[in-house]
Amino acid sequence: MIDRSRAVFTQHNNVIGTLNVLFAIKEFQEECHLVKLGTMGEYGTPNIDIEEGYITITHNGRTDTLPYPKQASSFYHLSKVHDSNNIAFTCKAWGIRATDLNQGVVYGMRTDETEMHEELCNRFDYDGVFGTALNRFCVQAAVGHPLTVYGKGGQTRGYLDIRDTVQCVELAIANPANPSEFRVFNQFTEQFSVNELAALVTKAGMKLGLDVKTISVPNPRVEAEEHYYNAKHTKLIELGLKPHLLSDSLLDSILNFAIKYKDRVDQRQIMPSVSWKKIGVKPKTVTV
Amino acid sequence: MIDRSRAVFTQHNNVIGTLNVLFAIKEFQEECHLVKLGTMGEYGTPNIDIEEGYITITHNGRTDTLPYPKQASSFYHLSKVHDSNNIAFTCKAWGIRATDLNQGVVYGMRTDETEMHEELCNRFDYDGVFGTALNRFCVQAAVGHPLTVYGKGGQTRGYLDIRDTVQCVELAIANPANPSEFRVFNQFTEQFSVNELAALVTKAGMKLGLDVKTISVPNPRVEAEEHYYNAKHTKLIELGLKPHLLSDSLLDSILNFAIKYKDRVDQRQIMPSVSWKKIGVKPKTVTV
Repeated sequence: MIDRSRAVFTQHNNVIGTLNVLFAIKEFQEECHLVKLGTMGEYGTPNIDIEEGYITITHNGRTDTLPYPKQASSFYHLSKVHDSNNIAFTCKAWGIRATDLNQGVVYGMRTDETEMHEELCNRFDYDGVFGTALNRFCVQAAVGHPLTVYGKGGQTRGYLDIRDTVQCVELAIANPANPSEFRVFNQFTEQFSVNELAALVTKAGMKLGLDVKTISVPNPRVEAEEHYYNAKHTKLIELGLKPHLLSDSLLDSILNFAIKYKDRVDQRQIMPSVSWKKIGVKPKTVTV
Repeated sequence: MIDRSRAVFTQHNNVIGTLNVLFAIKEFQEECHLVKLGTMGEYGTPNIDIEEGYITITHNGRTDTLPYPKQASSFYHLSKVHDSNNIAFTCKAWGIRATDLNQGVVYGMRTDETEMHEELCNRFDYDGVFGTALNRFCVQAAVGHPLTVYGKGGQTRGYLDIRDTVQCVELAIANPANPSEFRVFNQFTEQFSVNELAALVTKAGMKLGLDVKTISVPNPRVEAEEHYYNAKHTKLIELGLKPHLLSDSLLDSILNFAIKYKDRVDQRQIMPSVSWKKIGVKPKTVTV
């Protein structure tokens, strides 16, 4: 986390903002269906399978289905956990209907709609704060920067194509939750470790004649670098999600996109600049 | 919850206040031990035993010990869940040492220290917002008001004597958590249902010549009125807690206290005034 004021801003903004939305729904439109974007990062990396929002636990001879235990590992992800807990309560207490989309790491930059005109081109985050692993690796390959694996690279997460993000939100809206239902979907399509992503980008880069190298950099985050990870993601498939899986051709297209716009890349943003273990420091950028 | 502004105030006050304390510890006194007062209400009423902060779950052939799933049922209790999650993260990320005291419902009004002088007399909450069940029943018996059981009265919670509250905080401070440890204690000594408390107060009132009646009033809260409840509370005992259990003599003393000061009782505060299902209303007081 960068510093106190940004942690406070993030939690205040998300928690109070969502509270206000919930009270507005209750006061003005009780029947409406809240679709809330959360994150797979709410779960952390437990040593058991990650279910979709709830887990049935048998303990000392009794059984109950309870909210899946969360172990978020940043103040941002924690703010999403707080939101989920507040929303779940209002579903129970007020009969609100809500869907919580625990989204994985998004890659890609185009949807069918944005492809209709170049000026609809999406933002493409590759920096140390908002950037996501696969996007960053493609940018690094394009500009000849080594792929920066944080620590051991065994960090495994759920990923999805940006087109599937849009599809999932559409499916959730088209199939609303019932009154009083707090419905949780895990919104991703495939799991990859950071090392697996680096290998995929290296291979795709070779096909395009790029000499892609990988280095390990000290992990700025507090996270397990080698861990079990098996997260369920069947509910959106059951609603009709047709995933765009990460094929060679898609990776080629992201790489070609990064190459096309590589003169716009700010290389000072590539290296991690914020340590999650330290606080009170200003964000730094490291020139490579 | 009374209204939006009070829900927002409560969550802002607790969540941002605790965040600021955590950042202050990290910046100025990393070694210090945070003792945080939470509440048994964070757990809700799951259909399995409530453990102290963590539960070991075996799921699909794998096992992990995870944060106990929380099901808080008010915005206040939710704010305490948010705090617990934020503190747990800073223990892991920064090495903070913390103890989370999940306190049960407190009864009684005197400690050895306050008994030394009448002007040290404690506040005694019996109203519909801050008041707790046993205190309220004693006040009702003293002023000749029927004991007001909310709904079916099967609501079961952990209770403790106010002297044990003080003892528990002292024990937590005297036996600090280790660096990086997020230690959770369930701070109560006995479980009672609301109906059991009403029966105890009725019996104690009879001994003092009071004619105590009980009525059921519509439950202003959103909670199960008949449910399983078995919460563990051994860790503070292991540290040396010597509980003051709710004996006849203690109940007599609370009743006599309520009788002694009964001219100060504001009977308009006795009936529940805030519905947890409704929002946007001003707090009302009902004259009996």
